Amino acid sequence: MHISSQFDSGNIRVINADSPENITLAINNDNQSDFYQWFHFRLFSETFVAHKITITELAKSAYPDGWKDYNVLASYDRQTWFRVDSEFDGDNLSFEITLEQPSIYFAYFVPYSYERHLDLVGDAQMFLDCEHRLLGQTLDGRDLSLLVIGDEAEHKKKVWITARQHPGESMAEWCAEGLIYRLLDEEDGLSRQLLEQATFYIIPNMNPDGSARGHLRTNAVGTNLNREWAEPTEEKSPEVLYTLQAMDTIGVDMYLDLHGDEALPYNFVAGSEGIPSYDDRLKKLEDNFKQALLTVTPEFQDEHGYPKDKPGEANLTVASNAVGERFHCLAYTFEMPFKDNDNLPDPVFGWSAQRCQQLGEDILVAIRAVVPDLR
Amino acid sequence: MHISSQFDSGNIRVINADSPENITLAINNDNQSDFYQWFHFRLFSETFVAHKITITELAKSAYPDGWKDYNVLASYDRQTWFRVDSEFDGDNLSFEITLEQPSIYFAYFVPYSYERHLDLVGDAQMFLDCEHRLLGQTLDGRDLSLLVIGDEAEHKKKVWITARQHPGESMAEWCAEGLIYRLLDEEDGLSRQLLEQATFYIIPNMNPDGSARGHLRTNAVGTNLNREWAEPTEEKSPEVLYTLQAMDTIGVDMYLDLHGDEALPYNFVAGSEGIPSYDDRLKKLEDNFKQALLTVTPEFQDEHGYPKDKPGEANLTVASNAVGERFHCLAYTFEMPFKDNDNLPDPVFGWSAQRCQQLGEDILVAIRAVVPDLR
Amino acid sequence: MHISSQFDSGNIRVINADSPENITLAINNDNQSDFYQWFHFRLFSETFVAHKITITELAKSAYPDGWKDYNVLASYDRQTWFRVDSEFDGDNLSFEITLEQPSIYFAYFVPYSYERHLDLVGDAQMFLDCEHRLLGQTLDGRDLSLLVIGDEAEHKKKVWITARQHPGESMAEWCAEGLIYRLLDEEDGLSRQLLEQATFYIIPNMNPDGSARGHLRTNAVGTNLNREWAEPTEEKSPEVLYTLQAMDTIGVDMYLDLHGDEALPYNFVAGSEGIPSYDDRLKKLEDNFKQALLTVTPEFQDEHGYPKDKPGEANLTVASNAVGERFHCLAYTFEMPFKDNDNLPDPVFGWSAQRCQQLGEDILVAIRAVVPDLR
Amino acid sequence: MHISSQFDSGNIRVINADSPENITLAINNDNQSDFYQWFHFRLFSETFVAHKITITELAKSAYPDGWKDYNVLASYDRQTWFRVDSEFDGDNLSFEITLEQPSIYFAYFVPYSYERHLDLVGDAQMFLDCEHRLLGQTLDGRDLSLLVIGDEAEHKKKVWITARQHPGESMAEWCAEGLIYRLLDEEDGLSRQLLEQATFYIIPNMNPDGSARGHLRTNAVGTNLNREWAEPTEEKSPEVLYTLQAMDTIGVDMYLDLHGDEALPYNFVAGSEGIPSYDDRLKKLEDNFKQALLTVTPEFQDEHGYPKDKPGEANLTVASNAVGERFHCLAYTFEMPFKDNDNLPDPVFGWSAQRCQQLGEDILVAIRAVVPDLR
Ligand SMILES: [Ca+2]
Ligand SMILES: [Ca+2]
Ligand SMILES: [Ca+2]
Ligand SMILES: [Ca+2]
Repeated sequence: MHISSQFDSGNIRVINADSPENITLAINNDNQSDFYQWFHFRLFSETFVAHKITITELAKSAYPDGWKDYNVLASYDRQTWFRVDSEFDGDNLSFEITLEQPSIYFAYFVPYSYERHLDLVGDAQMFLDCEHRLLGQTLDGRDLSLLVIGDEAEHKKKVWITARQHPGESMAEWCAEGLIYRLLDEEDGLSRQLLEQATFYIIPNMNPDGSARGHLRTNAVGTNLNREWAEPTEEKSPEVLYTLQAMDTIGVDMYLDLHGDEALPYNFVAGSEGIPSYDDRLKKLEDNFKQALLTVTPEFQDEHGYPKDKPGEANLTVASNAVGERFHCLAYTFEMPFKDNDNLPDPVFGWSAQRCQQLGEDILVAIRAVVPDLR
Repeated sequence: MHISSQFDSGNIRVINADSPENITLAINNDNQSDFYQWFHFRLFSETFVAHKITITELAKSAYPDGWKDYNVLASYDRQTWFRVDSEFDGDNLSFEITLEQPSIYFAYFVPYSYERHLDLVGDAQMFLDCEHRLLGQTLDGRDLSLLVIGDEAEHKKKVWITARQHPGESMAEWCAEGLIYRLLDEEDGLSRQLLEQATFYIIPNMNPDGSARGHLRTNAVGTNLNREWAEPTEEKSPEVLYTLQAMDTIGVDMYLDLHGDEALPYNFVAGSEGIPSYDDRLKKLEDNFKQALLTVTPEFQDEHGYPKDKPGEANLTVASNAVGERFHCLAYTFEMPFKDNDNLPDPVFGWSAQRCQQLGEDILVAIRAVVPDLR
Repeated sequence: MHISSQFDSGNIRVINADSPENITLAINNDNQSDFYQWFHFRLFSETFVAHKITITELAKSAYPDGWKDYNVLASYDRQTWFRVDSEFDGDNLSFEITLEQPSIYFAYFVPYSYERHLDLVGDAQMFLDCEHRLLGQTLDGRDLSLLVIGDEAEHKKKVWITARQHPGESMAEWCAEGLIYRLLDEEDGLSRQLLEQATFYIIPNMNPDGSARGHLRTNAVGTNLNREWAEPTEEKSPEVLYTLQAMDTIGVDMYLDLHGDEALPYNFVAGSEGIPSYDDRLKKLEDNFKQALLTVTPEFQDEHGYPKDKPGEANLTVASNAVGERFHCLAYTFEMPFKDNDNLPDPVFGWSAQRCQQLGEDILVAIRAVVPDLR
Repeated sequence: MHISSQFDSGNIRVINADSPENITLAINNDNQSDFYQWFHFRLFSETFVAHKITITELAKSAYPDGWKDYNVLASYDRQTWFRVDSEFDGDNLSFEITLEQPSIYFAYFVPYSYERHLDLVGDAQMFLDCEHRLLGQTLDGRDLSLLVIGDEAEHKKKVWITARQHPGESMAEWCAEGLIYRLLDEEDGLSRQLLEQATFYIIPNMNPDGSARGHLRTNAVGTNLNREWAEPTEEKSPEVLYTLQAMDTIGVDMYLDLHGDEALPYNFVAGSEGIPSYDDRLKKLEDNFKQALLTVTPEFQDEHGYPKDKPGEANLTVASNAVGERFHCLAYTFEMPFKDNDNLPDPVFGWSAQRCQQLGEDILVAIRAVVPDLR
């Protein structure tokens, strides 16, 4: 029996792996940070033997509530990721599995590797409608890539989408991938119409260092990028600094920041009702966006979500608030679940990469509903 | 140089094919009918030589207006169908092409062969969610197949969809294919939700004989099936008779009949405002259906369409009227263009098979918008 | 319960289909011919019910020995064709099956439709290395297509390959398809080398009329094309006439005629040892061809086959003999089994479309072994 | 303009990247080693601008002869890798390119990432015919995986194949991949026959640490694994130690060690004529293997290669010699080119991943030729 995590986004610490009935593991902190919640490891062991695995010390993890009603993701072939029933006792997450193949992967959510990210960016740039730009380098020396989809023109609205500031929220990049490929589909009427009215600026992975390192929430030096939008620095948060500089140069008429939420079993948005410049125009845009999304997919809902900020009390270090305020534009944090959409539960796969991709495609419908009124 | 049409849905008559600059063709009537408009043939000739082709005698074709602003479809490989600029002078449709490969197909719209139909039905029945039923045989001895998607239960709404009563309107089956495969996608949340609330009864090809024969509008013996819904007969319209019998046995809560329109360059619906039992409930369902479809895709619109029937003046031999009246249910004839969607023109492909498929997927969004209120 | 055959290559006659336990069928003659052996039909019936099907009157079929140890092919989805255990009593072939899906196809061998044929020809012509030529029309008005693969040059050997003179031998076209796509693969070193040394003239279907009609052995008017090579006529065998004319114009350095054999459970070749001009050079070429094929695949063998013709006693109406004699070239009839390769039996699929394709790829290795010495 | 290599198998050092006309780079040593030759980097720069890139200090690289007539591999989308004409002056390799897309990758050969390796192993284990075993961990903590293909039985020959002891020779894993998937193809008659006669023990990547680190020739601590087979150690060469232990336990009847050769533009084998136990039996097996491979593919040849060892003078620290001697079995080092096969040059792609895969498939033909006589 052997447990390994020496691969892209691998993260686990073995406490005890002497016998299949009693495997105890823990999750490593993000580098230079106290956050931990993302795990990804491979178990190599005997087939047709029952294994009991416990991940411990979770009371101190970033989101203890994230483990309630959460079921671990597993895959034998790294393509099909299914759920394994799991139990949480307040500190330990336990699950049992009888192996069908000797090698099995477990992860907090379906991993989206840096190799796949590079494939996405490399493939996307081949399309006529897409221009690949380099915003700068991360602290580990990775490239921060921006995909510009659609010709740029003064009259066109500028729609920005960022994903995976929090690297363990891999659903954000799956969603971005679905959205990107729909936009690039030249026979998709909706995308063709959108690209006449808007140019898309998409950063499919804001935090490639944290992603490759197997972090939950921070970059290579432990910075939570989504608290850096007031004063990003070259030293701690170059990813935000370069993005904000590009936004200033280009302009922003709408912004979506794609995330995953550890606790809530729903897709939802968090708006910018707490920013100083929030007004009726922004509210109406928000309402129209949500209404269209409610029409197009039962995966979205607007009942469950974060408590709304009081007027003027928004945290302006957070991307969507900062950008909404800076550009007086529609700005949303879009949250997908790690668990499932409880309005439409799927006991086999839970919330999945495919559902993220479909949601990305459907988000374009909601963007279309607001694009004419964005400026 | 040779012109042939001895294949599925082939239809052409050579008047003169002596030289590439002057190829003159005509379209054969549907069997036992005066209708003609569908053509499908293969030209084998010299590459890098300009060819001028004229299809003549179109003033008497079924829809002379269909040729105005219409561009012929062509394909070298039977996969990619592109448009060739065409001119219509009131009786003759002319177009020029310099061949890149020696064999090229031309058709009125992207063909959907009986072989592909059998593949669709055979593949669909493999899904757990789908049951294949046989309604009966056509006059040429083909099978009339019904796909039942979703478990049947008393509380579930019964949604019927038929395609291609008019066999030359192949877009109807492309659209049905897109809709069917989305419904069968187990990771599509919208489809999963729909199948909890409704059972779908889909006939992807109501007129396989006319389709294989290369007809525009009628079945093997020249019957326009969409005028047979008042009194269908075993002798002239068994396709309608068997479908109506199945509807009576099972019940109908909603009905969509997929068609193509020769003249109008838009997607639109024709409702049942002229049937005796039309009322506010039906109007509201119609409005909700249209509103959702307008939200989900710019391919749909509600400005251009057929003149509305006056109250009580609906033609009850037409499928959607007959079914709407018989079951007091929402019933639409859904029309797609042969030409293009002029709100979103694509000079290369025009209205295409891919756009039909996408529209089929999007129609499910509109069905979801009305399903709870159907009964 | 319903049995239908109104589709490409369909052929069956229902004698009794009153109850699942006792379905009795017969095979129709080829048009204007006494031959019958090919069948292809669809049964629509109840799932989870045992069906017993008997095909009768087989003592007078073309090859009664073909039914011994033969297992019927079946498919639910028209993609996967599996074998069903069958029994032959000298006149009746019987098999039992409990349906998993309501619609199931049965056939003598995996069908290769005319639609697929047109797709193959249309797709192949798109490759730079391939030129599509039209040899003429069949009696039913179908196109007889020749694919020329590789540039033509005086020094290059001319290798001719024909398939499916006998239309029920669909394995011949599956094999040709595998061979064609390997030749067109620009990253396949063997194909690149071959195309420097030789030009390929391939007729993937010599008998499209018989194929579409569901014949075993003859064309539209009952002619066995493989007995027409001495004196083909426009009236009875235009397919052979046009092919032979093209051969005369172009020349032939090697010829393979792809067939299926009803009785023998092996792949084998029949050579031209009986033609007048047979000599050591031809014998050595034959030996080298066979030796290479024995090396590259266990699917080939040289023990079982037809009795060898005595010197000078070859039937010169047969394609490979006629062409071998006319051009003093290596000429083989290549036979594949309807049953299985008994040296490597596969109880699930038997001899299959995939194995035909692989064999087609492997035949190129054997051609390479002789190409330098062909002239 | 930016050059990066922070990704799987990335390796480059920027000396000067101030202007597109004069980009100067160097290659980093393998860790704890003097070897260097593998490079892999991404250039992000302006499109439609000519770039001149020089890799310098190559006189001291591992194989200076490797740069003569070598053309760099490049890719925009990480799927299609094409050659760029390059010049070598004894110390500097220079090449020019005008970018079509802003991001382009350059590499010594088509990379095969650790992610793809894990996909291969994970996918392979899903096949019934394949068992995945873990031999141990590398010094960086990666898994050393063995794929056992075919049931094990006393009478079956044991065929071992290892790839990529030298990690920069990525062609070895492309070749292994082709071979593995052919073996797993249940409809491939050759594979089915082979698996009745032999069991395959395949290590698709003997040196995952060196591969991921972007090494040419050594593992994580600078060990050349192919000089460790006399006395492998836990500290310096656990990869070899674990493999040899497994071979001792299981036995070996044949061994192929897949490599790339930097200098020679050919595929060839290096035999074990210099090992003490070399005899006529081994010579005959070698000859039969080579003869079959010459028959099946023009990519192989036996004229160009390494000088043959004199009797008894083989280096027994080398894998194929060590294993050949230890098990008195047929053992080959199989070399593929970094450049091209000069017998069949492809100016666009050179020796490519696809050709490696095809060669892997063809090697199975040569193995079949010797399997019955291996013991
Ligand atoms: Ca988050
Ligand atoms: Ca119509
Ligand atoms: Ca035959
Ligand atoms: Ca080497």
